[in-house]
Amino acid sequence: MPDKFSYDELFAAGSPSTPPGTARHAKYDFAVAYPDPDLVPLDGLVEAAKRAMANDGRDLAYYPDAAGYPELRRLVAEDLANERNIHVDTNQMVLTAGSGEAIAMVTQALIEPGDTILAEEFVYLGSLRSFRRYNANVVGIKCDEDGLVPEDLDSTIRRLKAEGRRIKFLYTIPTFQNPLGSTLPLERRKKILEITGQHDIPVFEDDAYFDLRFEGEPVESFYTLDDTERVIYCSSFSKITAPGMRMGYLVGPTEVINHAWSFKMGGGVNQFAASTIAEYVKNGDMGDHIRQQNDSLRAKRDAMLASLGENFGNSATWTRPEGGLYVWLTLPEGADVAALEEQAFQEGVGYYNGTMFSPDGQGNNSLRLCFGHPSVEMVTEGIAELARIFERHGLLK
Amino acid sequence: MPDKFSYDELFAAGSPSTPPGTARHAKYDFAVAYPDPDLVPLDGLVEAAKRAMANDGRDLAYYPDAAGYPELRRLVAEDLANERNIHVDTNQMVLTAGSGEAIAMVTQALIEPGDTILAEEFVYLGSLRSFRRYNANVVGIKCDEDGLVPEDLDSTIRRLKAEGRRIKFLYTIPTFQNPLGSTLPLERRKKILEITGQHDIPVFEDDAYFDLRFEGEPVESFYTLDDTERVIYCSSFSKITAPGMRMGYLVGPTEVINHAWSFKMGGGVNQFAASTIAEYVKNGDMGDHIRQQNDSLRAKRDAMLASLGENFGNSATWTRPEGGLYVWLTLPEGADVAALEEQAFQEGVGYYNGTMFSPDGQGNNSLRLCFGHPSVEMVTEGIAELARIFERHGLLK
Repeated sequence: MPDKFSYDELFAAGSPSTPPGTARHAKYDFAVAYPDPDLVPLDGLVEAAKRAMANDGRDLAYYPDAAGYPELRRLVAEDLANERNIHVDTNQMVLTAGSGEAIAMVTQALIEPGDTILAEEFVYLGSLRSFRRYNANVVGIKCDEDGLVPEDLDSTIRRLKAEGRRIKFLYTIPTFQNPLGSTLPLERRKKILEITGQHDIPVFEDDAYFDLRFEGEPVESFYTLDDTERVIYCSSFSKITAPGMRMGYLVGPTEVINHAWSFKMGGGVNQFAASTIAEYVKNGDMGDHIRQQNDSLRAKRDAMLASLGENFGNSATWTRPEGGLYVWLTLPEGADVAALEEQAFQEGVGYYNGTMFSPDGQGNNSLRLCFGHPSVEMVTEGIAELARIFERHGLLK
Repeated sequence: MPDKFSYDELFAAGSPSTPPGTARHAKYDFAVAYPDPDLVPLDGLVEAAKRAMANDGRDLAYYPDAAGYPELRRLVAEDLANERNIHVDTNQMVLTAGSGEAIAMVTQALIEPGDTILAEEFVYLGSLRSFRRYNANVVGIKCDEDGLVPEDLDSTIRRLKAEGRRIKFLYTIPTFQNPLGSTLPLERRKKILEITGQHDIPVFEDDAYFDLRFEGEPVESFYTLDDTERVIYCSSFSKITAPGMRMGYLVGPTEVINHAWSFKMGGGVNQFAASTIAEYVKNGDMGDHIRQQNDSLRAKRDAMLASLGENFGNSATWTRPEGGLYVWLTLPEGADVAALEEQAFQEGVGYYNGTMFSPDGQGNNSLRLCFGHPSVEMVTEGIAELARIFERHGLLK
């Protein structure tokens, strides 16, 4: 047997070595942000694929436009104007494999190792992974039940500037934040725009959950509130069609798009999926689907809040989202749900603990609970089971 | 009107600014490596999508495995074993958005700015773009009608090492090379493996065209010839299904996979497309489709070679591929087809000139002619038209 070749000296510095993960599911799965598998519009998608191939299928023979299927970009722009009061040209948009790819592209276009990114003190895992991959210094801003606290944002910026840090942007999920579930009120958005404006810091707004509002009124986006082209925006079809469709989009000033698109590797977005989604949207199926899904999410959120009240009572606090997929549960200090995560999974309840979302590893007494995937009954039972596990292991009195 | 915000000071160094391109087609389109739009198996794909959704559609609700849809990885591994004598475990494979994404991932895992990549003296554009994006120093190795010249490879490595250059890998398309159309004979592959072995240099083998052989016998891959895990391998469904399906794969030693996968942004590959292709393969449709496509490619290659003989006679030379999509046409020195490219497009014939594929901008008297897309009649006419354009502009005597 000849010697095995060693790549040890060849890998780029900072290129980590871990095997690619595979999905696993606890009996009660509150861990990953999945929508309800029973609500994926399979028949609608198959019919849409059929129409897409009949109309435009020959175009599969071509490499897709770098910015992605033009017809889907047109439909997204139309929807952004009608539903979100966001007015963009299709040339200011690149379709991406979910919002995750959009985030990776913007990161690469703007970040050099050591540059600083501001974010909520608990940040969407995929974003955190991209930021770390490209060696950004991620600094968390304090959040309360309404999200980012403007005063902490201001003082943190001043401190970082005094230290000579180069701040590249504020990354935020203002609506139904992942993992906190919070939504920034309008006045706070204006204040945050003002503070970042004083310091010439762009806002990168991740609006993946906009459509998942099942209560209350929509709040104007940073993108709409700004009129100086200082906001970069991304969103996704993952939560309103299915994550497996891998479809999202990046919207921004032309100069940002012109820098960011070339970091999209593998060419324009999957055209089979893009043309299928376009046909699905054109058929008018999306609105009904979103309404049906939000009815389901409201029922699950209600079940989760009720079961938390019943089983956690006064021994923990939690957020009450008006939409989205997440409740953030906080136990008393010292209750280490991070250390218990694997054991809880083995005992049947999956969650992600707070330290996974924290730039500096805080939050071992907090956890994210996603209510999108399990049924109402499973949500109710699963929260009770979670309380029993925590009690059994001495985390709840 | 408030002042527009300027990002000028914010972009990462080396992040270029160009608008994303859109596809355009000349009347006679020899420019881009498209398969024949009439041969895209649209009905088969729609039927496969229907079966995929019926079997596995609920899984769209989950984020795909980072390495991509397990069933398609299993089928690819099976096909590699049966058709290419390549034996790999599904854990040594990551599905990617075409081979282009695989190349970008390997580049990021291995390259630090200034590191050297060896390649054919004319290199696939997508690879060249990735190599440059991550600031590699790409050094072209001389090629003859059989591809890479081992003696030049050896002397180039010695020279670069003497200069203190850090060589990270040899990137090669050994079969039906893009853009040259050449295929490395077995003995030369062995010789190249020996030379790179002496210098501890991995080989990154891009085998995107393996299935497109319409003449002659397959040659053993570098991957199979090596038994030291020194070869990284990628291939693609783009040319045997459709580029718009954006499906390829990276195969390599576990340690390379463990480093490379995390540079795949946007999560695991599009599951709607992956599960559709898996059903298409499982149904046994792929073999027939490839045979039909290769019959068509042979007829087009024959038409192109005949029309080149008729219209270019002794005033140019060209390659005679046994498969794939490319003929490489070389005019006498001084015949600047690079300068004429845009004008030729305006006059109805699209091609890519040699300098686009050259790491150091050589080859302005050469061009790549893709015969996959136009019909046999259009190939014949288009080559005649190309000769007329070259004559009209004084490039042919």
